[in-house]
Amino acid sequence: MKEIYITALSAGDQLASVPFLIQDVSRRTTKDGRPFLLLTLSDKTGTSGGVFWDVPPAVDEWVSAGRVAAVTGRVSDYKDALQITATMMLPESNPDMGDYLPSSDRPKMEMISELYDFIASLAEPWRGLVDHILLNDDFLPSFATMPAAKGMHHAYIGGLLEHTLSMANLADTLAKQYPLVNRDLLLAGTLMHDMGKVHEYTIAGEFGFSEDGRLLGHIVRAILMVETAVSTTKALNDEQSRELLHLIASHHGKQEWGSPVEPKTIEAVLLHQIDLLDSRMQGFIDHVKKDTGDGDWTKKSYMFGHEIKRPSGM
Amino acid sequence: MKEIYITALSAGDQLASVPFLIQDVSRRTTKDGRPFLLLTLSDKTGTSGGVFWDVPPAVDEWVSAGRVAAVTGRVSDYKDALQITATMMLPESNPDMGDYLPSSDRPKMEMISELYDFIASLAEPWRGLVDHILLNDDFLPSFATMPAAKGMHHAYIGGLLEHTLSMANLADTLAKQYPLVNRDLLLAGTLMHDMGKVHEYTIAGEFGFSEDGRLLGHIVRAILMVETAVSTTKALNDEQSRELLHLIASHHGKQEWGSPVEPKTIEAVLLHQIDLLDSRMQGFIDHVKKDTGDGDWTKKSYMFGHEIKRPSGM
Amino acid sequence: MKEIYITALSAGDQLASVPFLIQDVSRRTTKDGRPFLLLTLSDKTGTSGGVFWDVPPAVDEWVSAGRVAAVTGRVSDYKDALQITATMMLPESNPDMGDYLPSSDRPKMEMISELYDFIASLAEPWRGLVDHILLNDDFLPSFATMPAAKGMHHAYIGGLLEHTLSMANLADTLAKQYPLVNRDLLLAGTLMHDMGKVHEYTIAGEFGFSEDGRLLGHIVRAILMVETAVSTTKALNDEQSRELLHLIASHHGKQEWGSPVEPKTIEAVLLHQIDLLDSRMQGFIDHVKKDTGDGDWTKKSYMFGHEIKRPSGM
Amino acid sequence: MKEIYITALSAGDQLASVPFLIQDVSRRTTKDGRPFLLLTLSDKTGTSGGVFWDVPPAVDEWVSAGRVAAVTGRVSDYKDALQITATMMLPESNPDMGDYLPSSDRPKMEMISELYDFIASLAEPWRGLVDHILLNDDFLPSFATMPAAKGMHHAYIGGLLEHTLSMANLADTLAKQYPLVNRDLLLAGTLMHDMGKVHEYTIAGEFGFSEDGRLLGHIVRAILMVETAVSTTKALNDEQSRELLHLIASHHGKQEWGSPVEPKTIEAVLLHQIDLLDSRMQGFIDHVKKDTGDGDWTKKSYMFGHEIKRPSGM
Amino acid sequence: MKEIYITALSAGDQLASVPFLIQDVSRRTTKDGRPFLLLTLSDKTGTSGGVFWDVPPAVDEWVSAGRVAAVTGRVSDYKDALQITATMMLPESNPDMGDYLPSSDRPKMEMISELYDFIASLAEPWRGLVDHILLNDDFLPSFATMPAAKGMHHAYIGGLLEHTLSMANLADTLAKQYPLVNRDLLLAGTLMHDMGKVHEYTIAGEFGFSEDGRLLGHIVRAILMVETAVSTTKALNDEQSRELLHLIASHHGKQEWGSPVEPKTIEAVLLHQIDLLDSRMQGFIDHVKKDTGDGDWTKKSYMFGHEIKRPSGM
Amino acid sequence: MKEIYITALSAGDQLASVPFLIQDVSRRTTKDGRPFLLLTLSDKTGTSGGVFWDVPPAVDEWVSAGRVAAVTGRVSDYKDALQITATMMLPESNPDMGDYLPSSDRPKMEMISELYDFIASLAEPWRGLVDHILLNDDFLPSFATMPAAKGMHHAYIGGLLEHTLSMANLADTLAKQYPLVNRDLLLAGTLMHDMGKVHEYTIAGEFGFSEDGRLLGHIVRAILMVETAVSTTKALNDEQSRELLHLIASHHGKQEWGSPVEPKTIEAVLLHQIDLLDSRMQGFIDHVKKDTGDGDWTKKSYMFGHEIKRPSGM
Repeated sequence: MKEIYITALSAGDQLASVPFLIQDVSRRTTKDGRPFLLLTLSDKTGTSGGVFWDVPPAVDEWVSAGRVAAVTGRVSDYKDALQITATMMLPESNPDMGDYLPSSDRPKMEMISELYDFIASLAEPWRGLVDHILLNDDFLPSFATMPAAKGMHHAYIGGLLEHTLSMANLADTLAKQYPLVNRDLLLAGTLMHDMGKVHEYTIAGEFGFSEDGRLLGHIVRAILMVETAVSTTKALNDEQSRELLHLIASHHGKQEWGSPVEPKTIEAVLLHQIDLLDSRMQGFIDHVKKDTGDGDWTKKSYMFGHEIKRPSGM
Repeated sequence: MKEIYITALSAGDQLASVPFLIQDVSRRTTKDGRPFLLLTLSDKTGTSGGVFWDVPPAVDEWVSAGRVAAVTGRVSDYKDALQITATMMLPESNPDMGDYLPSSDRPKMEMISELYDFIASLAEPWRGLVDHILLNDDFLPSFATMPAAKGMHHAYIGGLLEHTLSMANLADTLAKQYPLVNRDLLLAGTLMHDMGKVHEYTIAGEFGFSEDGRLLGHIVRAILMVETAVSTTKALNDEQSRELLHLIASHHGKQEWGSPVEPKTIEAVLLHQIDLLDSRMQGFIDHVKKDTGDGDWTKKSYMFGHEIKRPSGM
Repeated sequence: MKEIYITALSAGDQLASVPFLIQDVSRRTTKDGRPFLLLTLSDKTGTSGGVFWDVPPAVDEWVSAGRVAAVTGRVSDYKDALQITATMMLPESNPDMGDYLPSSDRPKMEMISELYDFIASLAEPWRGLVDHILLNDDFLPSFATMPAAKGMHHAYIGGLLEHTLSMANLADTLAKQYPLVNRDLLLAGTLMHDMGKVHEYTIAGEFGFSEDGRLLGHIVRAILMVETAVSTTKALNDEQSRELLHLIASHHGKQEWGSPVEPKTIEAVLLHQIDLLDSRMQGFIDHVKKDTGDGDWTKKSYMFGHEIKRPSGM
Repeated sequence: MKEIYITALSAGDQLASVPFLIQDVSRRTTKDGRPFLLLTLSDKTGTSGGVFWDVPPAVDEWVSAGRVAAVTGRVSDYKDALQITATMMLPESNPDMGDYLPSSDRPKMEMISELYDFIASLAEPWRGLVDHILLNDDFLPSFATMPAAKGMHHAYIGGLLEHTLSMANLADTLAKQYPLVNRDLLLAGTLMHDMGKVHEYTIAGEFGFSEDGRLLGHIVRAILMVETAVSTTKALNDEQSRELLHLIASHHGKQEWGSPVEPKTIEAVLLHQIDLLDSRMQGFIDHVKKDTGDGDWTKKSYMFGHEIKRPSGM
Repeated sequence: MKEIYITALSAGDQLASVPFLIQDVSRRTTKDGRPFLLLTLSDKTGTSGGVFWDVPPAVDEWVSAGRVAAVTGRVSDYKDALQITATMMLPESNPDMGDYLPSSDRPKMEMISELYDFIASLAEPWRGLVDHILLNDDFLPSFATMPAAKGMHHAYIGGLLEHTLSMANLADTLAKQYPLVNRDLLLAGTLMHDMGKVHEYTIAGEFGFSEDGRLLGHIVRAILMVETAVSTTKALNDEQSRELLHLIASHHGKQEWGSPVEPKTIEAVLLHQIDLLDSRMQGFIDHVKKDTGDGDWTKKSYMFGHEIKRPSGM
Repeated sequence: MKEIYITALSAGDQLASVPFLIQDVSRRTTKDGRPFLLLTLSDKTGTSGGVFWDVPPAVDEWVSAGRVAAVTGRVSDYKDALQITATMMLPESNPDMGDYLPSSDRPKMEMISELYDFIASLAEPWRGLVDHILLNDDFLPSFATMPAAKGMHHAYIGGLLEHTLSMANLADTLAKQYPLVNRDLLLAGTLMHDMGKVHEYTIAGEFGFSEDGRLLGHIVRAILMVETAVSTTKALNDEQSRELLHLIASHHGKQEWGSPVEPKTIEAVLLHQIDLLDSRMQGFIDHVKKDTGDGDWTKKSYMFGHEIKRPSGM
């Protein structure tokens, strides 16, 4: 359990087994041949440089980017910034990444409860299938932890579930505005459209891409997950399965944006629009939040391609 | 007042001053030198060929595409289709174009009433300005008649107002989901974003483009309308005016889609997304409705670039 | 068994139960209200117009595009072209579509034998998996019949297998030129990369797209086929499965060409290049073959975007 | 009035109230807690680092990027470059930005005189309108000061007027080569096409974008300026106004380059071509001038996308 | 020498050896097996259908599209249009294509004289080289006859020279406005930039592409022409030759528009701009001229991508 | 002859006339006004910083990037890296650039021998022409030394010939798979398609572009080389020459990739595909080789636009 955060450190502090995330590590040698480590240590409040002189082989062996280490040592000033000089580092097993990486503002349990409610509201056969896949003990904890993207929007712990629920709310509302839409199919597709991201990203250290994410991507992974669940549960017939897979496969809207097929049913067209709308709105808000200036205009946003204007309430 | 519609005609009927829209007219001469007219006549229920032999100069003079003519003559069969052989045609003044062109399914008065309600719900200074522009007697009748597009979506009498109200409903709902959004600014921009189309299209005959639409387009025209209203009413200060003009100028979302600036405020981003969402959904439904086949798949849609699948309820 | 072909018909011939493919059918009514059918009848040698006057309800019921019908009637001349006037039509069950649609120049059995040899040459675990999927009795007949595309290249009966084998030969040769390539993985991916097309196209009547082809496409379908086979046979471990799925998912080379991921392994880069090379070369040859002119230059090719020059040997 | 320029400074010089532009300022604290400023000071001849130790609150308060400050202090060498150590800084009111930013080679008065001549050569109603807008005392000084762009071409004080006059000369000449062109309409449009840039840029510190420039851009601003002037002066009828607004709205040539409509009249086509031609030619010359190498080839030009060759006379 | 033109024919006229261009010919057979020709005959004033019954083998042999034939026969009416029924056709040798295809409004001799003047105004070494290539007896007649394009602009007999001279005038004028430009190099490049089109097009029948035009294109052909002339005359040194070849190679401005290199010298940038400007202006005028409607707006222009507005003087 | 390489240096070594390539040189002055040189010295094994204090004018005069210098001096450590402090530098004449720049793994003589074999295998007239151009004593040494590209693939000494031979092997093999292809024409085109690069690049210092490469590029240069050889040897007739030039001109495949014409013959289509295939495969391998990480995934590749996966054998 983490109690001391980087933002509270000052020069002269002594650290006794304080855990930090190792964001980056370089192995160097002094002129007289002694090994040392240059470290970047972080938690959700900030980042500090670090150095470990005369690193013992037992430590050298396991230290790598993405691990969480309990650090013993001292805090000093170096080139106008904090530096942690470590004298011992031990690996933490099973850390709560929410302490080390930026997190959603919504409490995790509140979001999980909302997910349960949405699934309960589905008609069969959709309810059974979605329950089988998402409310699985091997899956739900990761689903509730993942970011929704590496950097564009919802790029924080819990962002994937937050984005999924935000879209589910939109889907529920819009299905009423456009009554030709099959609400249960749309909602099932919405809840599962990005679930492949659980296998696409890694959240050790900085958010990165997994082997699965690089070679297959979250759309193909989600398709495989649905197929496996359907062949296990026999919940859907061929046509229902195809309609659901179409929602997932087409939700990026265009082939050039990574969908192997484009939306061809009314639910698929709407799901893509909801995804676009929620990503753009949350991407706007995230960019403004992260922008450290205090003027009316942010720096250039990668998503929008230009500077954006801070809303008056922020 | 039109009482007889094309869909009800059959070979042998006699017509006495029945009004039709002249969609197209060609002037021809018989081998022995007598002038005649080849006509395409239509109303909101269908289209018929027509011919007027030995056309008198007084008729020849005024007949042109887009006029409504009261036709006297006879209905016959020609090449498996109806043909109207006219013996007299007189120009109708001030016809209700709703009889001749496809119309929205929503009653006009119901839509106007809903527009009044939305405007009444606005805070000042937005309410005064929108009222001044839209509820003007010179403007409202056209605003309630125009289509929203030439062919892609809402391409029928009343389509512009129907699209505007559908978007206003979305704006109202979504402003709650994203509380940073200034709901009154968003709604004012939504109600006025496409109002320049009243000057962009012509609805005589087939929907076409006016001189104003060709040289300036509806975005520039709406900008000029706001500017004129602001300088008359002094309703807005410079900053409010700029924010509102930005909504209108940027609502197409990208320069390549005709917006001179891209959305840079949260309301502008949301307005563009709402416009996209409603256009795509209604464009989907319109394409399925117009598609005459009875299979599950329509012909290729110009908007989507491929065939789309008929929703099960249609 | 079909014995009489369109190319051999002449005006005056009597037809007794001669089978033809119904490419197109329109239901019409004479001026005095009697129903008749306008038909386009075809086989692999050509196309003829057809008409069936006073069509009995029992015939009217089943006649549709894509069916093969045994036609009794008479051949005549109409507007400088042959026309078949039918007096009876009966449905053929289980016709050999190779009689009615253009076919590969290579004998089917020779191609199947070559496929067996390629699979036999694979090391495990690839051999077992490819055998399980492709040499399956429910699959192989269709795999040996399908075209490789609707119109661009190899668009004829057997074209899919012909294209697959041509690519397998290239893969075998090029794996030697680039020794870093895993030959067995490459060849397994080559043999299966387009197998999803068996479910993508329909070959009744003209080549068309199936429901599966429209909603999922052949890449997603092939991914599902591999997944099902892997979970049945346990032939591959996770990493092998991912490498193989990557080959299939990325073989179009770019997202804008329909691949959800781009090639990232050396085998995937080579597979895409082989596919491109063979499609372009066969597409060139097919376009020249189909071009009916006798000059040096063909009409504009859709694949190449311009006219192409006939090779001297054709 | 500025008399001492950066290019003439050397280590050891004493400065007494010498004015410089503050291009950038960072507020820092020494290890023992005393505030100091790191400055970038500049004038039209160059740039120097600066530092102000123990900055008094009265100075700290007003110092910001874009202000001109009269600096008292001393010049020294720091890391092979000049550094100004300030002991006092006072704000300059109403500085002539031409002393601090790069300027056009053409004398301002000569350019204004040429502008008068062009306007005098116009036929009515164009002369009255252009005179009303451009020769206005509130507008002309800014119009004669602004750059024509932030970095691509004519990016210096007076560049906007220089570019406008260069294009007016081309318009005058080319109207003779293409006699169908309405010379007075073309020239009026040319003189006003970029005038919205007076409100688009800010020239405090570095050239930047104003609130108006970000939310509306110079095309929309110029459209509003014409509309206001027309409604005040009644100089133009509706058709003339539309033709002129079309020139301004379409002068970027394509929607993707920021024009809400594309050129549709012969004058609009020519105006866009003249703008393109003059921008490219001056952008070529500006890039070569700014390029500090002495070889035949410059560094890569952003406008052209590659290196360009120095003309032999430069 | 052609004296009778299509525009003057009427039903009943007898034709005795009147020459027409054969634009198109189809070989057909009557139901009783007699061969006949369906013809499209034309001259610069218009087009007429034609038929030649019982065509003798000696005529059948040489008749082909692009030949000029002296036709004996009779004019009649067929389906409201003229038809020429030929009884004899003899090939014309060496016809003046200006009689059969649309021509420039400028007299050929006047244009050639202007070309001589431009060349005379060049400094050496440019004058000698341009004279050697363009004023060559084998080349000049074709250079003065060719169109400048197949359809976009200057698509008529003499159009290539007319476009070249129009651009030379612009080059001469603009070299004064931008004094860094080497006027003689620019003018030499302008006069020769499109000369490869003499080998690119064929003007028999309709304008088409030659073997050279298809396989190499006019840019490569012009490069080869310069290279041959330089190696014959030794007029230019390596650097001069490279500068001139660069002008020709880069004049389309972008690789995607067919230039193997992009403009990198000031003369090359200006030449491309002049080409663009003159093509657009003349393309605008040509489109309006060819447009047969009488309203203010033309049909959609392929060059501009939309309808354009007729200038008031046309 | 170079015997000592950078990879073998260590602090304290004395250097006596050891040759290095001067990759970069900056001229600086100490605070007390003495000139010195900051150098980047390299050979094919690595790079070292260098400094030359109190540089004598005779040395200062000739030192420039791209020259090879015999350096006398001493090796030391500076900021954790090697630095060579020179006391004398003398220019090397005629160095073997293979000692200083990365080179192909294939021995030069083996590649030249393979080139001879390919040319010997050609039928006339191709053999004579290719021999005349490539086996020329003025050309072959450069052809065997050049890289095939600046950075994308085969970017090392001998890379051009290595790429040419790899493609020739592919051409030879594939001509058998597609028998309509004229093998001798294809092979001649393959051997010469990139030969213009001998004039496009410079290999002094880093690989760069020559004046010829910038203004004309290797495609135009190769076209000129063929033209000159054909006019000297009369080896080809017009049609053969055109077919060969077409191969060279079109081998980039698309205009936007720098080909003035697109491939229109079967040999041109195949040549482009072979070029693409070999460039991508070698580009993949080169990127993995240069990537210094040791994980499974490389850094982002410029050619592929994303990270690529290291083949298991590397």
